[in-house]
Amino acid sequence: MPKNQKKIVTIGGGTGTFVMLSGLRDYPLNISAIVSMADNGGSTGILREEIGVLPPGDVRRALVALSSQSQKILIDLFNYRFNEGTFNGHSFGNIFLAALEKITGNTQKAIDEASKMLDVKGKIFPSTLTKCHLFAQLENGKIIKGETNIDIPKHNTNAPIKRVWLKPRAKANPQAIKAIQNADFIILGPGDLYTSIIPNLLCSGIKNALIKSKAKKIYIVNLMTKFGETNNFKASDFVKTIEKYTTKNLLDFIIINNKMPTKKRLEKYREEKAQLVEIDEENFPKTAQIIKTDLLRPRGFIRHDPNKLAKTIFQIVF
Amino acid sequence: MPKNQKKIVTIGGGTGTFVMLSGLRDYPLNISAIVSMADNGGSTGILREEIGVLPPGDVRRALVALSSQSQKILIDLFNYRFNEGTFNGHSFGNIFLAALEKITGNTQKAIDEASKMLDVKGKIFPSTLTKCHLFAQLENGKIIKGETNIDIPKHNTNAPIKRVWLKPRAKANPQAIKAIQNADFIILGPGDLYTSIIPNLLCSGIKNALIKSKAKKIYIVNLMTKFGETNNFKASDFVKTIEKYTTKNLLDFIIINNKMPTKKRLEKYREEKAQLVEIDEENFPKTAQIIKTDLLRPRGFIRHDPNKLAKTIFQIVF
Repeated sequence: MPKNQKKIVTIGGGTGTFVMLSGLRDYPLNISAIVSMADNGGSTGILREEIGVLPPGDVRRALVALSSQSQKILIDLFNYRFNEGTFNGHSFGNIFLAALEKITGNTQKAIDEASKMLDVKGKIFPSTLTKCHLFAQLENGKIIKGETNIDIPKHNTNAPIKRVWLKPRAKANPQAIKAIQNADFIILGPGDLYTSIIPNLLCSGIKNALIKSKAKKIYIVNLMTKFGETNNFKASDFVKTIEKYTTKNLLDFIIINNKMPTKKRLEKYREEKAQLVEIDEENFPKTAQIIKTDLLRPRGFIRHDPNKLAKTIFQIVF
Repeated sequence: MPKNQKKIVTIGGGTGTFVMLSGLRDYPLNISAIVSMADNGGSTGILREEIGVLPPGDVRRALVALSSQSQKILIDLFNYRFNEGTFNGHSFGNIFLAALEKITGNTQKAIDEASKMLDVKGKIFPSTLTKCHLFAQLENGKIIKGETNIDIPKHNTNAPIKRVWLKPRAKANPQAIKAIQNADFIILGPGDLYTSIIPNLLCSGIKNALIKSKAKKIYIVNLMTKFGETNNFKASDFVKTIEKYTTKNLLDFIIINNKMPTKKRLEKYREEKAQLVEIDEENFPKTAQIIKTDLLRPRGFIRHDPNKLAKTIFQIVF
């Protein structure tokens, strides 16, 4: 790793982080990806419950995003999902990471070994090595256990989330803390606010490290609201929530898409009660620099375009 | 691969082939391992039935036997067996090969890719790419379906096996045929006679290629009989059965252990009704050269010692 490369730490999980890392991997940057360990759904949930490993899903996505195309077959394997029999629904990458954790006896070592095999650019750190679950209390008082129950709400209610926490109390991964301390830039998001981004900030030690770090902090506002998590959220609501779980005026840069998707693309989201996030920059903290630009993927799902997003980040960093 | 290396083809499956290949891998030989595709038990059986892949178990053992220690973590993964939850009893290596077959859509390609990843010395060829099952008819007329039912007999009878066959009719893998045609030496065994060695010979094309090949043929006699398969077999019975499924006077060399294990080691086999194979060389075909030597593993299971066996083979080859 050349010494003059800027040290970038990303904090997140899920598809948002995958998209960003896929774009960033081609730039001359020293990347550390801190990923959430709260996932308990699907293949990941079964593996963590039955085999006692830490949830592999977000780690797997980060590994694939940062892997080298020279390892194409192994990447294809990591992306493969069984669709029949005993293994139905299981991601091969998750099974791989679970077995690797079993034989190494250590989550971080398993990730480091998988990183070598996949020729991964950068480092991947789980935000915590504590086995914990995400809890949410809604404004109506109801408590929900488990990332997946918050993420895919069975609580078909419009009650917003009041607060989230981890149980048992999760200690931050010391390597994640160290990466934050040494970073030049720290990027939060994009990704599900309460289920992918904030679970990292709840690990004891992360918040303080973030506040103390001299790194410039960048927040990437989501494109769409998510039903059950961020109903009716405007851009400033995302920012305020990040500040609530860290500190006021944490952010140096707020990156936000200003390209409207077509009505046709938006229509598909009506069913899942997701809306385009409104840009209310007048409510943004005055201390942060706002970067509004086209970050939209040209077609399909309304998601960030990996290249547009990475280019925008790189322009800040250099 | 240096051109002057002797071309060795092994025909077998299971633990016997694993032991031999582990020993041979350190010698300057050009190795092709032809392995049986009749296994339908355990993890392998579930994967072939549920996911529709060819049975990965024997391929996995050959891969590990011929792999390079530089790939230690991946070898450890291949040897790992889950012992809880949904995956209980499944070998990770089998799952790996099954997923690889799914994404490549081709068993031989999956094996070649896994061979690259494990830095395997030599080539591994399934004897057939046809999905088939092994059937046995006992002397009492009873027909048994499936390698595992023959291997671990529920038919608690002393009736010997009359004949075995594959159903549907299995066409030999053309690459296996080619390896046999080009071989300098072909080694049959050690391994379960009816469930690991002969299933290869039943694939249409293998027998004729064997008979026609100018290679010297070596047979390694098993150390122990196996209840349900080779009850009361003497050494010559093994040889005669191999000849029955190929041709008279096929063999150029017969390698046989002449070191007695201790009574204590033998006692452990009484429970599974297995006996030490008696050397009745007077009944051996006169055309074959007999090599009697110490091939016994010094302790534990009564198995061939990989190094002693490989050294003996190498002395014939050079």
